[in-house]
Amino acid sequence: MTALSPTLSSTGRTRLGRRSDRARRDRSDLYDVLDAGLVCHLGVIVDGSPRVLPTGYGRLGDTLYVHGSSGARSLREGPAQDVCVTVTHLDGIVIARSLYHHSLNYRSAVIYGRPRLVTDPDEKLAGLRAITEHLAPGQWDVARKPTRKELASSSVLAIPLEEASVKIRQGPPGDDEEDYALDVWAGVVPVHQVFGAPCPDPALRPGIPVPPHIARLAAS
Amino acid sequence: MTALSPTLSSTGRTRLGRRSDRARRDRSDLYDVLDAGLVCHLGVIVDGSPRVLPTGYGRLGDTLYVHGSSGARSLREGPAQDVCVTVTHLDGIVIARSLYHHSLNYRSAVIYGRPRLVTDPDEKLAGLRAITEHLAPGQWDVARKPTRKELASSSVLAIPLEEASVKIRQGPPGDDEEDYALDVWAGVVPVHQVFGAPCPDPALRPGIPVPPHIARLAAS
Repeated sequence: MTALSPTLSSTGRTRLGRRSDRARRDRSDLYDVLDAGLVCHLGVIVDGSPRVLPTGYGRLGDTLYVHGSSGARSLREGPAQDVCVTVTHLDGIVIARSLYHHSLNYRSAVIYGRPRLVTDPDEKLAGLRAITEHLAPGQWDVARKPTRKELASSSVLAIPLEEASVKIRQGPPGDDEEDYALDVWAGVVPVHQVFGAPCPDPALRPGIPVPPHIARLAAS
Repeated sequence: MTALSPTLSSTGRTRLGRRSDRARRDRSDLYDVLDAGLVCHLGVIVDGSPRVLPTGYGRLGDTLYVHGSSGARSLREGPAQDVCVTVTHLDGIVIARSLYHHSLNYRSAVIYGRPRLVTDPDEKLAGLRAITEHLAPGQWDVARKPTRKELASSSVLAIPLEEASVKIRQGPPGDDEEDYALDVWAGVVPVHQVFGAPCPDPALRPGIPVPPHIARLAAS
């Protein structure tokens, strides 16, 4: 495997025409945004029109994994065309003195690439593990492993993290000079994604406590 | 304006091949998902490949509005092709006894349509107002209104809410019958999006308190 550059290279698709001041070019920024997310939005073209679907994902090094039913059209079409995967964190609503400068604080990563249908059984299992562990670290070792039939009914796509752009906006509004004198409140209303207390399955057998890795997740 | 059906009609694009048991067909479900969201993911085709970008939005009746710089490629290409707009709420991580049945609780809306570039000045202002008020209700009447030049530098797209699908998954995992006997914890870790306390702009003039509509937003 060739090592990818620590800097995200600029292509026609990833060069930011708008607000390029918000661009980050470090590969580590890309991984930070991906690792902090829970779901991505996968964009594919189906019958000539774009389709955007939310789905879980996982990352192993320079590869992003998504999965779905072997019958899902969006995954079946995947390997035949480039896809776009976007991960967005909304961090705040930016309240400005002028309506024009209202904005959002966010971190987002947009990845373009030709997905590869994972056929190697070991990589498929590793990809599924990455997807599960991304949502609930520690869960792979605890739950019942997939059967051969379950594995066959899942498709896993590997998307190279070669072509990507990262955009980050943080901080207060940027109003026009003359507007700072206005008698209008300005600032940021922060937005956070938080976990609640684990809610046991009503059908849970009595006497099974919340395991430490789930308690840790809920407290994070 | 013709009234749209209270039931979402099924088209080739919105018919759910997978997990159709999660589909909702009431128009009111669509509006509930849209009205509860903050950002959408807009999918367009640029140079033959899909592009998925996060952006704010607003809804007025049966029309969804998005905006951006007049120069933004994703908006410029919009009116020439169908777009896809997806709004997703992640509500929980579903921890099952088997890895295969791990899932997410979510509400999502996927809208397909040919956007219309809004040229009527009144509708443009109404669309921008809907987008602002969606993020911060009450803010439109407080902040400085857009100038003619600012209006000219913004494009507003109107997307009809005619062709859409809504999918909702809630509740505990659905494990295989024989797995309920396993000694494995199962349940849901809820996920919520919450607002934090308003953070004033460091450049805010002294003596301007947080206005009630912003305090209400933060407390919601």
